Amino acid sequence: MSSPSYRPIGPVVGMIGAGQLARMTQQPAIALGIELRVLAGSLDDSAARVVVDTRVGDHRSSADLLDFAQGCDAITFDHEHVPTELVRELADAGHSVHPGADALVHAQDKAVMRERLTAIGVPCPPWARVDTPADAERFAAEHGLPIVLKAVRGGYDGRGVWVCRTPADVADAFSAGIPLLAEGFVPFKRELAVLVARSPHGQGVSYPVVETVQEDGICVEVLAPAPGLDGEDAAQAQRIALKIAHELGVTGLLAVEMFETEDGLVVNELAMRPHNSGHWTIEGARTSQFEQHLRAVLDLPLGSPSLTAPHVVMVNLLGGDDPDLFKRYEHVMAHDPGVKVHFYGKEVRPGRKIGHVTAYGADLDDVRARARHAAVYLTTGEYT
Amino acid sequence: MSSPSYRPIGPVVGMIGAGQLARMTQQPAIALGIELRVLAGSLDDSAARVVVDTRVGDHRSSADLLDFAQGCDAITFDHEHVPTELVRELADAGHSVHPGADALVHAQDKAVMRERLTAIGVPCPPWARVDTPADAERFAAEHGLPIVLKAVRGGYDGRGVWVCRTPADVADAFSAGIPLLAEGFVPFKRELAVLVARSPHGQGVSYPVVETVQEDGICVEVLAPAPGLDGEDAAQAQRIALKIAHELGVTGLLAVEMFETEDGLVVNELAMRPHNSGHWTIEGARTSQFEQHLRAVLDLPLGSPSLTAPHVVMVNLLGGDDPDLFKRYEHVMAHDPGVKVHFYGKEVRPGRKIGHVTAYGADLDDVRARARHAAVYLTTGEYT
Repeated sequence: MSSPSYRPIGPVVGMIGAGQLARMTQQPAIALGIELRVLAGSLDDSAARVVVDTRVGDHRSSADLLDFAQGCDAITFDHEHVPTELVRELADAGHSVHPGADALVHAQDKAVMRERLTAIGVPCPPWARVDTPADAERFAAEHGLPIVLKAVRGGYDGRGVWVCRTPADVADAFSAGIPLLAEGFVPFKRELAVLVARSPHGQGVSYPVVETVQEDGICVEVLAPAPGLDGEDAAQAQRIALKIAHELGVTGLLAVEMFETEDGLVVNELAMRPHNSGHWTIEGARTSQFEQHLRAVLDLPLGSPSLTAPHVVMVNLLGGDDPDLFKRYEHVMAHDPGVKVHFYGKEVRPGRKIGHVTAYGADLDDVRARARHAAVYLTTGEYT
Repeated sequence: MSSPSYRPIGPVVGMIGAGQLARMTQQPAIALGIELRVLAGSLDDSAARVVVDTRVGDHRSSADLLDFAQGCDAITFDHEHVPTELVRELADAGHSVHPGADALVHAQDKAVMRERLTAIGVPCPPWARVDTPADAERFAAEHGLPIVLKAVRGGYDGRGVWVCRTPADVADAFSAGIPLLAEGFVPFKRELAVLVARSPHGQGVSYPVVETVQEDGICVEVLAPAPGLDGEDAAQAQRIALKIAHELGVTGLLAVEMFETEDGLVVNELAMRPHNSGHWTIEGARTSQFEQHLRAVLDLPLGSPSLTAPHVVMVNLLGGDDPDLFKRYEHVMAHDPGVKVHFYGKEVRPGRKIGHVTAYGADLDDVRARARHAAVYLTTGEYT
């Protein structure tokens, strides 16, 4: 562990992990005079490049975590990969950890999440723990094909998810040799996400419900607010998310991914940190999700989640074959002086989330076309 | 000079100086993946606390500047204190310096500025170089009392300015032993400021004209756009600022402070960097002045200067007797979830600019009251 000599003036928030979420958290930390410290795996990590108080260490090491936490007013996370028992150990050592282990485990363990959501009456797909291919076959016989097998722990961005139509698909999923959960396939109209924040003193706020567009399990586009969503459905989605935050004792941000179906809303996934479905808030809401998370983990009053424009669209930048994005800034900025470009300072690799663009305005079709044009041009050089 | 091992991915912008302007420049640099490097006097400087690639050195040392500039794609400034000849030396060594010495000198030397503005037909107060108290007395006899004596170089925030009504006032100014300029006192209705950006390829944009409210020579409040300003007057102010930028060959930002008088606009001061009168743009414009400056110095297309709300008000936070602002965040954030707080990470000292707050919305009186309430409470603890 490196330990730079750094004398803080403001409150210190320690974020475990140093990816793009920590990087974007540094922007409101700068504004508020909050001292962000990150635990990076390497000095090349996205956030390590912009956070002076970067410590290099292992998020699976109890010693590294306890060392990192010394002097922090709050501890929080850039990812879900810190083992639950080490999160608990930090709190037991007297640190203010947000979310705490008892909440966070629901974002780490999909079986625990499903059990708890079912118990509190939140709509879920049919689900079961499955230990063997035979368990999965029985689940399929009961609920119909296809079924979805998911890694109980550790999946993200489409990894650790198998949509199974045949016994061969099921065998393939089990060949990974990890604990699996079976879920019924939800025939959804579209995917929605609700981002809420909850502070230790119990204040909660919800951002407007958004529509997320996924390709190959990766979020590619977010439309805020979700176009054409009925007001009562939107309120219901927000109530579900706030209820989960309250019942699970979440502190900080909670992103709830949902399916919109003919029969109502079904909860898909939870995340307890700033979330890709909330990147639009940097320009599109009065309080960005990153500022909101800082406020929440420090138990400060939460900020306004109001929209700054009628429509906001965010499109992810997924790395292509060309490592040099910067040469394309010229066209994108000249073509549209209002589009906002975000680049995470990561080496460009095919398929990697390397940035995003945001457009906002009064006309959804126009805003969406602007965001897409910028994203396609930046990543491929193609003029669409 | 420290030289951290730092491998840039994006273009590198070197900013000489590490005050709050450099600090706030880091926020859009993070978004755009631009690598900000700062030359700090000390690691405790405002920007040094949030910029990984901070070099400690002396901005009056040719060797330190040349060393600092190595590997930068563009060099720019957080302040006007780099000697003009050293700015020229950087350009002569092949660096891309914005603004260049021939432009910057007009923001460093008030006599050079007055000569040039007069030559290009920009409205100025009556002025003259004065070498002795007798010169000043003659100037006063011709133009009437009071007169304003100004340090030709180095004044800021009301320092280096003497409003003289008596020979004793004049003697007091000359006792400083520095070159002085005399200006007629301008009976103004209010003070305005225009912020424009100009890029090396000649693109120019102007932000809306703002009203600035000064106390004791320090800007305390900025109203964007300037309330009740006639459309033709606003256009005229923007034309003047863009003309100055063009004629002087400014690259980067140019702030033009003006007096609004019964007889029209009169130019007061120039600054060629992000400016206090533009802090409102962080939330109040589609492109913040800090992002705009980065775009301009890298010769990227400029961003939209459009307002994000009908009215935006910024109020400076000047340090009071109490060094702990953070305990007051709770009230301010609970009282107004939409107000934006900016703290520069500087030790609180009486009278020092330590941060600012911004409010925005549809009703000017409401927006102004919200910004003032937050600023007064944060700096004094008084509930107004």
